[in-house]
Parts: sequence; structure tokens; C-alpha cells
Amino acid sequence: MKKYLFTPGPTPVPPEVLAAMGAPVVHHRSPDFRPVYERCLTRLREVCRTQSDVLLFTASGTGAFESAVVNLVTPGEPHLVVSAGSFGERWAAMTKAYGADVDQLQYAWGETPDADDVRARLAEREAKAVWVVQSETSTGVVADVQSIAAAVKEAGALVVVDAVSSLGAVPCETDAWGLDVVVSGSQKALMTPPGLGLAAVSDAAFERRGSTARFYFDWERTRKAQRALDAPFTPPVSLVAGLDVALGLLLEEGLEDVFERHVRLGRAARAGVKAMGFELFSPEEDRSAVVTAVRSTEAGEIIAALRDRFGITLAGGQGDLKGKIFRIGHIGWFDIFDITTALAAIEIVAAELGVEVERGVAVTAALEAYEHSTVA
Amino acid sequence: MKKYLFTPGPTPVPPEVLAAMGAPVVHHRSPDFRPVYERCLTRLREVCRTQSDVLLFTASGTGAFESAVVNLVTPGEPHLVVSAGSFGERWAAMTKAYGADVDQLQYAWGETPDADDVRARLAEREAKAVWVVQSETSTGVVADVQSIAAAVKEAGALVVVDAVSSLGAVPCETDAWGLDVVVSGSQKALMTPPGLGLAAVSDAAFERRGSTARFYFDWERTRKAQRALDAPFTPPVSLVAGLDVALGLLLEEGLEDVFERHVRLGRAARAGVKAMGFELFSPEEDRSAVVTAVRSTEAGEIIAALRDRFGITLAGGQGDLKGKIFRIGHIGWFDIFDITTALAAIEIVAAELGVEVERGVAVTAALEAYEHSTVA
Repeated sequence: MKKYLFTPGPTPVPPEVLAAMGAPVVHHRSPDFRPVYERCLTRLREVCRTQSDVLLFTASGTGAFESAVVNLVTPGEPHLVVSAGSFGERWAAMTKAYGADVDQLQYAWGETPDADDVRARLAEREAKAVWVVQSETSTGVVADVQSIAAAVKEAGALVVVDAVSSLGAVPCETDAWGLDVVVSGSQKALMTPPGLGLAAVSDAAFERRGSTARFYFDWERTRKAQRALDAPFTPPVSLVAGLDVALGLLLEEGLEDVFERHVRLGRAARAGVKAMGFELFSPEEDRSAVVTAVRSTEAGEIIAALRDRFGITLAGGQGDLKGKIFRIGHIGWFDIFDITTALAAIEIVAAELGVEVERGVAVTAALEAYEHSTVA
Repeated sequence: MKKYLFTPGPTPVPPEVLAAMGAPVVHHRSPDFRPVYERCLTRLREVCRTQSDVLLFTASGTGAFESAVVNLVTPGEPHLVVSAGSFGERWAAMTKAYGADVDQLQYAWGETPDADDVRARLAEREAKAVWVVQSETSTGVVADVQSIAAAVKEAGALVVVDAVSSLGAVPCETDAWGLDVVVSGSQKALMTPPGLGLAAVSDAAFERRGSTARFYFDWERTRKAQRALDAPFTPPVSLVAGLDVALGLLLEEGLEDVFERHVRLGRAARAGVKAMGFELFSPEEDRSAVVTAVRSTEAGEIIAALRDRFGITLAGGQGDLKGKIFRIGHIGWFDIFDITTALAAIEIVAAELGVEVERGVAVTAALEAYEHSTVA
């Protein structure tokens, strides 16, 4: 059966990238690897829109995020974590595990964090850093990180952004928005298999490193090695080669065009599911262009039927949302026909499961929304 | 130019494994991945010869080793680190970075750690755990971990083994030798690209977890997820798929036959370099079957010439040994003709560089040593 991976990570990987992954292994300190590594690091700065070092870690996105925690947190220090879903709560748990005195600005899953709320919290209590999720993959909400960062900067704190599922899909202007740390992973919009995490680290963040014990995720060790085109520990050469090709594809398309494509894919997905009669869980806004979350009490059955009948993988809900939503990912290597495929398949399995859906309209609605829309 | 990777990590990867690496990405919680994951975990227990959990980390071998440090070390506790090269010194630095009160049994690079020395140190001072390198990749020495572990057990301490470049090349009997933690990585004898680290963790080690803050490398979180055939964070599905194929190849050949092949490859490499007139840096013993280190004041020039003329990558010396030795790796996917290729190429470039070498004898000496030897 032909397989379709429509989850918000790992995401489908272009064949050019897979070919690079399957190429013979080279030594990381040889002339076979160094030019690839150098180009990859340069491209990462371009995608992150930063002049700062982008540090690469052999790790999942969570590992790269942990690098920010162990380098910035000194036990007992005040930190503010903004959470509105599974990943925000993970970062609250992680900063607490490392002894930070955490104030958590906690929204219900699915709510959108607000810059004024952050401003108010920081007026009540100082924080060394504010930890924010740009794209909360568990709910489909993309926060307005630009305005939140502005509020954080007013208070003189550092801002650390989880851009795991957003970097390369929606705008993330590291330097222009004053983001001190931007964390991401290879397996979302960067169109590469999982296994590489990254952290763009500003000089301000680097200078404010704390006293928590660290070794593997130590920024200084990694930065020093990377500046000499080396790595402190054997890097995952195949993944780096794959990422280099993927970043080349991304930059060849052009970041602005990539962002516009994601906005239009989001519109198409929302138009399609609404035309069928489903209710959206993720907000109906252009910014939330990473994953479309849909309410359905039959979510579990729909996901299983898509998988078994058509080889299509969608994601369900996490935590309390399990069985209540399904999520269509459209991050990275997606075009409009991935959306219409997902919608056509959802329509038929939902109908067969006895869900009341409008037939024959979703694909057209999605195509209309995609084709006849322009992005400012 | 055809390329030959003869370094002690990353090592060459069989085409079947590369093909798995280049296969389309699947979701880690889907039926496309779970059977692969389960089989891979089972095969890892078989290769580690243990009934305990083998915990997988998206990390280099150093990251997997850090999991042992952050889970076992409580600041201020006494620990004994045995070092005789680059990696032993790394583990001393890492355990100290996490606040252990480290007694270091420090040998010169190239010496072979001795069980009686360990016994004597433990008689002087208790240790919660003893940290030992099985194969010191920087020198080519493989320690007698079985006898060292016996000495450690007498003292009632835990024994943690760096088996990064030895697991799957030389015997490492986790359960039979009473090894509490065995750490390895994908990119050596396991014939897979770098990016996956592993730690086999005994119940005794698991029960003695310390109070150091941890999250990403937390054993409990990882063990709990793996026992439910899940992973705490997105696993590197492509690397796991590759590792599964590689472990299948290893077990199909049979571990005992694999170990014998490595012993004979070591004999062949040593016979060849000695026949040319080079002096060995690594010991002339069957146990040291992972990498053959060779003294040469022209090591740097030989390595550069091999690379530029023939596309052959050898490793040089690390630390103080830089420029003084070259190292021929023969871990994992190697047969006798990789050894003869390396020797033939070394012979010609050494002669051209004016090194006094005996011509026309190395390949035959290696073949003789390989063919006409049996391993008890």
C-alpha cells in the first residue's frame, strides 16, 4: 500500500534528502564532510535569520531545548514559562527539573498566549528568561512570538523560543525580533528525518550562562568546536548531509514563498474540514499554518480507518485531547494535493463510520481556498 | 575517486543499512515503526548479552555515557574513573563536571588498565561506581573488562563500561561479567551511521540512581516509554531502521564468528605493518582487535597522502599523540581485503614520502596471519 505521512512530525522527507541519508558514511573531520557541514551551518543561520551561532546537537528537539535550560538556568532563579499545550507543559516540567523557580503562565490547551498577559506577569515578578512555544503542535496554535518577545524585552529578560514545528514554516525572525534562543529540530519544516536538534544562541544569552552542571549540551564546548568547523562529539554525518540538502531546497524555493505556501495550505485544510461539517479545534487564522486540529468524537476511529484502508497516518490528540481531535500536519514537504488527499480520505472513512459529513465538497473548497487566495 | 573509510568511527556502513536509512520516514507511533523498534530493542539485548533494558538515546555515544553519569552520580559521592587515553579522560572530566568526588586511576596513553590496580584503589577508598573504557579508541588498547569488573564487584561497587567502539567487535558479556551499565553507539561495530547512543542498565544500577537533575537522559522516563514500545521524545526513526538491519547482519553472521573475524583482522593488520618495518603503538594481543595504532613520525604526511591520492581515510593521533601515530580502524563492516587495501596503500605512500619501508611483503604477511590462524 502506498503510504502517506500527514503527521506534524516526523514529516515526509523529499527523495533528494533521503538519497543523501543513504549515501556512504564519511568521516566528520575529513574534506568529504567539512564543506557540507560548513554549508549546512551557514544555511541554518539563513533559515533562522540570525547572525548568531546556530548550535547543532545530536538529539531530538527536546534535547536541543534542554541545552537552553542547562545553559541558562541556575537553580533558584526566577523564570517564566508560557504554556498552552503539551510542549509548553514539557518546558515547565524541564525548567522545574533543573531547579528554576518557575512562574507558569498557563493557558488551557488550545488558547493563544497573549503578549499583554506576559507583560503583566513580568510586572509582578522578574524573570531571567521567558520560555515560549511558537507553534504548539499539540493544539495547532501558533503564538505571536514577535509581540511576546517585545513584551519580554521591555522587562529586560531573555526570550527562549521553541520553534521546533515552526522554523521554516512560519516567520521566525531571530535577530529582528530579538529572540535570544531559538530551538528547533530536523524532523518538521526542515524536511529531514528526526535526530538533529539546533539552538540559535544570541551573544546576550551566551553571556548569561548559569551554573547548572552540563557537558553534552554545553553551549561553550559546542560553539568553540563549530567555530573551528568541528564538533565536540561525533556528529550524525548522514543527518547533517540530509539536512544540508533539505535546507538547500527550502532556500531555493525562498523562505517568503515557503511561508506563503504554508499559509495557503492552512487555509485549504481549514476550508476543507469546515465544508465537510467538522468543527475546527485550532484557530481559524493565517498564523496557525502548521497543523490543523479538528474536533471529532470519532477521531480515534477515523485515524485507524485512514491508516488501515489507505495507508494514511494522521495524528490524534495528546493528553486530555486524546480521542477528541485529529490533527492534519502540513509542515515542510507538503503541497495542495497532500491536503486534498487527506480530505478525500477523511470524507470517505468518516461517512463509512456514520459521521454526518457533507459529501463531495471538501476537495473543491480546499482547492478554492488555496488557489484564490493571496497572502499580504 | 572511490572512497575507503578505514577510521575507528564512524565506520563503513553496509549498503543494506544505507538503503534502510534512505527509506521513506514513518511515524514513530505507527504500525510501520513499532515492529522495527521492538525487533531492534530485542536484538540490542542479544548483542549486549543481557536481560536488562537497553535504553536508546538520540545522541552520540558521549550522550549515552552522560545518561550514566547524570543517573548515577550524586554530587560529592566518591567515584573511581580508570583512564588510559582520550576517552577515559573524557569520562573523568564528565563525572567531575557533575560534581562526583573522582579518584582517577590514570595510566599513560597506551598502557593497559589492570584489575589489581583497580582492586588496590578500591581498598584505599570506596567508590559508588567504577568507570572503565573497554576499547580505548585513541590508543587501540582493549582492557580486560571481565577481570576489572570482578575486582569492582568484590568491592561492592557498580561498574560502568564505555563499550562504544567494542560492542559487537570483541566480547562484552554484560550479564555474565556483572557489568551494571554498558554504553555504546551506533557508528562503530554496530555498522550504522552516528546518531544513536545506547545504555544497557542493570536493575542494580537503576535502583541506585542519584539526585542529579536530569530530563532528556533520564533512565526512568526512557525505560518506562520503551517498555510500552514508545519513546519519550521523537526517536530518529531512520537510524533505528538502519540499526535494526545492521544488527540483523551481525546476528546472522553470529556474534562468536564476528569476534573471531575481528581477532583475525587485528592479527592481519599488525602482521602487515610490522612486515613493512613499522613499530606498533597498540599492544600486540588478540584482545586489541578494534584499531591498530602505528608509530610514525610521518603519520600526518601518510594520512594526507592516502586521502589525496587514494581516497582512503585513516585516523591520526589525538592529544599528545597527534603527528606521532596513525590508526587503522577495523571495527564492524570490515574483511581482510580492507586490511590489505589499507596496507598496500600505506606501503606506496610511505615509500614515496621517503619512509624506509620493506616493499612487497605487507599484503602477504597480512593474508598469512588472517588465513593461517585460528582463534581458541
